[in-house]
Parts: sequence; structure tokens; C-alpha cells
Amino acid sequence: MGNERIRVLQVGMGPLGIKMYQDALDKPHLRVVGAVDLDDAIAGQDIGKFCGREEAGVRISSSLADVLDHTRADIALLTTVSDLERATPQIMEILNAGLPVVSTCEELSYPYETAPEKAREIDTLAREKGLAVLGTGINPGFLMDALPSFLTGVCRHVEKVEVNRYQDAQYRRLPFQQKIGAGLNMKGFEEKKLVGTLRHVGLTESLHFIAAQLGWKLDKTEDIISPVVAQRQIETDQLTIRPGQATGVNQVGNGYVNGTLRIKLTFQAAIGERDSYDEVLITGTPNVYSRIAGGINGDVGTCAITLNAIHSVLRASPGLRTMADVPMVTCKA
Amino acid sequence: MGNERIRVLQVGMGPLGIKMYQDALDKPHLRVVGAVDLDDAIAGQDIGKFCGREEAGVRISSSLADVLDHTRADIALLTTVSDLERATPQIMEILNAGLPVVSTCEELSYPYETAPEKAREIDTLAREKGLAVLGTGINPGFLMDALPSFLTGVCRHVEKVEVNRYQDAQYRRLPFQQKIGAGLNMKGFEEKKLVGTLRHVGLTESLHFIAAQLGWKLDKTEDIISPVVAQRQIETDQLTIRPGQATGVNQVGNGYVNGTLRIKLTFQAAIGERDSYDEVLITGTPNVYSRIAGGINGDVGTCAITLNAIHSVLRASPGLRTMADVPMVTCKA
Repeated sequence: MGNERIRVLQVGMGPLGIKMYQDALDKPHLRVVGAVDLDDAIAGQDIGKFCGREEAGVRISSSLADVLDHTRADIALLTTVSDLERATPQIMEILNAGLPVVSTCEELSYPYETAPEKAREIDTLAREKGLAVLGTGINPGFLMDALPSFLTGVCRHVEKVEVNRYQDAQYRRLPFQQKIGAGLNMKGFEEKKLVGTLRHVGLTESLHFIAAQLGWKLDKTEDIISPVVAQRQIETDQLTIRPGQATGVNQVGNGYVNGTLRIKLTFQAAIGERDSYDEVLITGTPNVYSRIAGGINGDVGTCAITLNAIHSVLRASPGLRTMADVPMVTCKA
Repeated sequence: MGNERIRVLQVGMGPLGIKMYQDALDKPHLRVVGAVDLDDAIAGQDIGKFCGREEAGVRISSSLADVLDHTRADIALLTTVSDLERATPQIMEILNAGLPVVSTCEELSYPYETAPEKAREIDTLAREKGLAVLGTGINPGFLMDALPSFLTGVCRHVEKVEVNRYQDAQYRRLPFQQKIGAGLNMKGFEEKKLVGTLRHVGLTESLHFIAAQLGWKLDKTEDIISPVVAQRQIETDQLTIRPGQATGVNQVGNGYVNGTLRIKLTFQAAIGERDSYDEVLITGTPNVYSRIAGGINGDVGTCAITLNAIHSVLRASPGLRTMADVPMVTCKA
């Protein structure tokens, strides 16, 4: 890259896109040169001012085609949707305009088993164009897939991989507490579960990511969401949770090989957890028990790893890549 | 690779080479097809029997040239020496015969700053031949370089990286306890230090590895060896250590950027440590505190990661590679 700044196109100006812009301002090697959001209420605004920073001289456009046509950029940062169905046309459009892509689209993190046709479609065009595409983030993208896979590198044999991400939501903001279902009774929790807003997207992709690194083929996966139920009354600044109500959500991803449970990913966010942590337990030779005390904050981590991945994507082989086959993503100041 | 076994040439039949052969037997995708050791006392023996296993029909040869001439292999596993000075001609000879190399040579793990000419020499020939060369192991190769670098991927900013590898040697075998200087008085410890056998090789390489991943340039490095001194009398099955005698060794690698200590690697192996663990502390945004309980056994881990790296080296871009730029090394059954 030399001393030239990498020119970034920010596609998607939701909460994550805003944070991405703010964080990119602190990176002397990055420069956001264009921005897109489909929301007409945002379009036309200066990205700097929109993100609560200085005027940037870059207007948010509601047309991806328009920005791709008129902006010289080196890479697109895609933070629009979680599902690959809607992300794919956006990725294809960006590739066709000649830019590589880093995206926080959860289902892009490892789509080879869950959406093989979309994966092939993206991979084929990316290779044709000589560009790399990567889905990343803290989870999926790191804590429940890349990190446990990386730790198996020291093992002669692996029998089982378990990952536990536990978060105490006691001191989180009320919207987060409500998002995880805290304070709902069992009926309310089930209703919220059906709406789909409780669900962490990407667990099945993480299962397949790990399995692929270990040369395993999963014959069954499960993605199970349950309430964490209060055993006693819990008071927070904003909520009173009575016994029998939900304190938060527990989501488990199970991966089976020949009928045996060999990968178990547990994500639990609830009020009154004793501790927050990210834990990897590998049963094998040797056993590996790794724990990140306090856990990694999802928002901070996702922005960081996505911006850090820009260098890796620019150096990666063309095609749809994963965190296991791009050059190591490390902090770039 | 399809279902074909990867044909491995084992160069170096010391303790590590023996363990490598034994472990490779459990990997259905690997087959050791040739073996070299310069020791004439070993030459001519069947590698299987020499390693305490079944006869393999592969004789250990004392001539690398001879084996390279007469054996069809896919990769060479080099476990001969720790220093790059002596490893380089061996690597060049293997490359010239058309094989990629995975090696446990400690100084090969990141030689760009400590031995830039040798690094360039190897890199140039490897690119010319279209082959990859990798130095790996548990330390250097993973715990004090690749792992902490990998963990910085979730950080927006990194101020300082500290790694602590602490090993309780209480229940290790006597030769290991003697190797770390346990039971020596201060004069004996200093003498042993001068001989060089106390020194863990690769600390400076690990410092430069981390710095490179973070885009830092170290203007000073230190590699300091000190005794851990008994405060009270310690009894093991084999040793009595009196107050003032060494219980083991402490080695610290410091890396400075513009005069500020920003990387600190501590390796301590001593009798009577309260705990064994491998710990990474990143001061940054966010802070990351990761700990592997019990620590990773060096011998087991080094064999595992080296065999696991074979796949990554076969898929890597040609040249002298590092653990940060080959496809992720994960456990291959």
C-alpha cells in the first residue's frame, strides 16, 4: 500500500455503518471516500455530520450504482443486512464495479454449506474479477469459529469443540436488555422468539466453519433458542424481573458427526450472570481450555475486526474467502 | 489432496523427529516415505523400529542428497537445528530438489529482522521454485507470536502486548528440571547460562513477528535470562532446593518502539510455580485478557502444529512464509 491511504466505500449507514465511519477516522491509513444508504431520509447528508463528526465533504447517496460509477475506491465495506439472500445482489454489484468486499453480513461468514449456490455465485464472479470477498465480525467471524479453529492448531487430535459466550446484561442499556427478552414472561418470550429478533444469526455458519477446518462433515446441526429463567427476583435500574420471567436468552448450536455431538456453541446473554467471558474448550490431545475474561464487546469488536480485515482482503487470493484462508487479521493502527 | 496420502520426508531423527514420526503414524493422510539423519550410528536403521514402532520398510539415510535423489515426496519436515545459520543450507538443498519445507528451526519462525540476508536467500529460491517454506512450533510459532497477533484482530487500537508462559516444573522429569537450572546455586546458574543451554531460542523472532503484524518497527529488543530464586526450601522427589538456589529460569523478551516498551514476553519454568498457564494481555481498545489454563505442553504442541501445518504450507503462496500468512493451521485428523 505504501503511504497511500486505502479508499473505502461505506455501504450501509445503520448503527454499525456509523460506528465503522467513526472508527475509520482514527485510522490514518483509511479514508472513507463514498457512502451509500437506501434510506431516502439519510441520502444527501454529509457522512461526517451524519455520524456526529466534522463535515467530511462526502455525501451519503441512496444509489449504490451511482456511487460505484462516480467514486474511485479500493474496497467496499458492506454493513447492510444479515442474510445472504439480500446481500448477494449488493455484493455482485460491487464486484462488477471492480471492488473487493469486506462485509459484516453474518451469513456470508461461512456460506458453503448453508447457501452453497449463493456461495458459488459470489465465488465465481469474484475469481473472474480477481477480487476477494470476506464476511467477518466478532461473532460470527471470530469468537465462535476462527478462534476455536485457530486453537486446534496445537492439537494432535480433536474429539470435541465447545465455545461458551456468556454475557452479563445487568449493566447494559435497556434496549439491549429488551432485545434479549429480559423481563418477558414465557409467553412473551415465545412470541418474541417467533418474530425472530431474539436470534443471533450465524451460529450454523460457525458450526460449519469449525467442522471444515477439522475436516469433519456435519450430518446434523441444531440451533436452539431458550429463555434463561429467573429463579429469584432481580432488580436492575430499569427492570424488575420476577421469578419465572426471562432474564435473557440462551442459544445453542450443535453440530453432529455420524450422530455424535462434536461441536457445541453456546451464546447466553442474561441479567444476573455471574460473569462475562468467552471460553473455548477443546477436548483432544492435548485438551485446550482458553478463556477471555470479561468477554469481547460485540459492537467494538465487530467494527475493529472488519476494519482490520481490509488489509487481509486486499492481499487475499481472489474468490469468496473465509477468516481461515485470508492472511491473519491483526490490529492495524 | 483428494484421498492420496501426503508423502513426507523426515529430516532429523532427534527426539523431535522421533515424536514426529510416531504422531504421523496416527494421521491417515500422512505417510513418511524417507528419513535422514547425519548421525552414522543411526543410519541404515528402519525408521519404524528406530522409533519403537513396527518396521516401516524405510531406512534412515545419512545423506540428504541421496534421499532427495531417490525418494518421491511432497514435503520435507525439517527438525535438525535451532539456528538458521546451519538450517539454511539444508533448506536450500531441499528446495533445489523441488520440495516445500515445514521446519521447527526456531530462528526460521520470523527471520526477516534477525537474519535478513538468510531470509532473502531462502525466500528468493522458494519463489523461484514455486514452493513455500515455513518455520513453526509451539514457541516460537504459536504461543508468543501467532496467538497474541491473532487476538489483536479484535482491537481498534493496541498500546501494549504482553505474553506470559509460566510452567510449574515440580512434576516434570529430572532432565527437564536440570535443563532449567533447578537446584543450581547462583554461580552454577551463571555458568550454565553462559554455555547457552538455558536459553529458549526464538524470543527475539517472536518480538519482531508481533511488531510486524501491528505495523510497528522495534528500535530495541532485549533478551534477558535470570534465575528464579528459592525463598524457602523446596523438596521434590529428586531434588532438594535450598533458599538462594535456583528453582528454574526466567527469560524476558522486551520490544521497544521509540523508546517505549510495547511488547513484553515472559517465559518462566521453575519448580514450585503455583500454576502453569499461557496468558496474553493486550492493553488497547478493548483490552484482551486471554488465558490457557494449564498451559500447552511444548513437545506435544510442537509436533502437532508442525504436522498440522503441512496442509497450510502445501496451499500457501511460494516464498518464505510465516504463521501470519499461510492459510490457518488447524488440527488435521
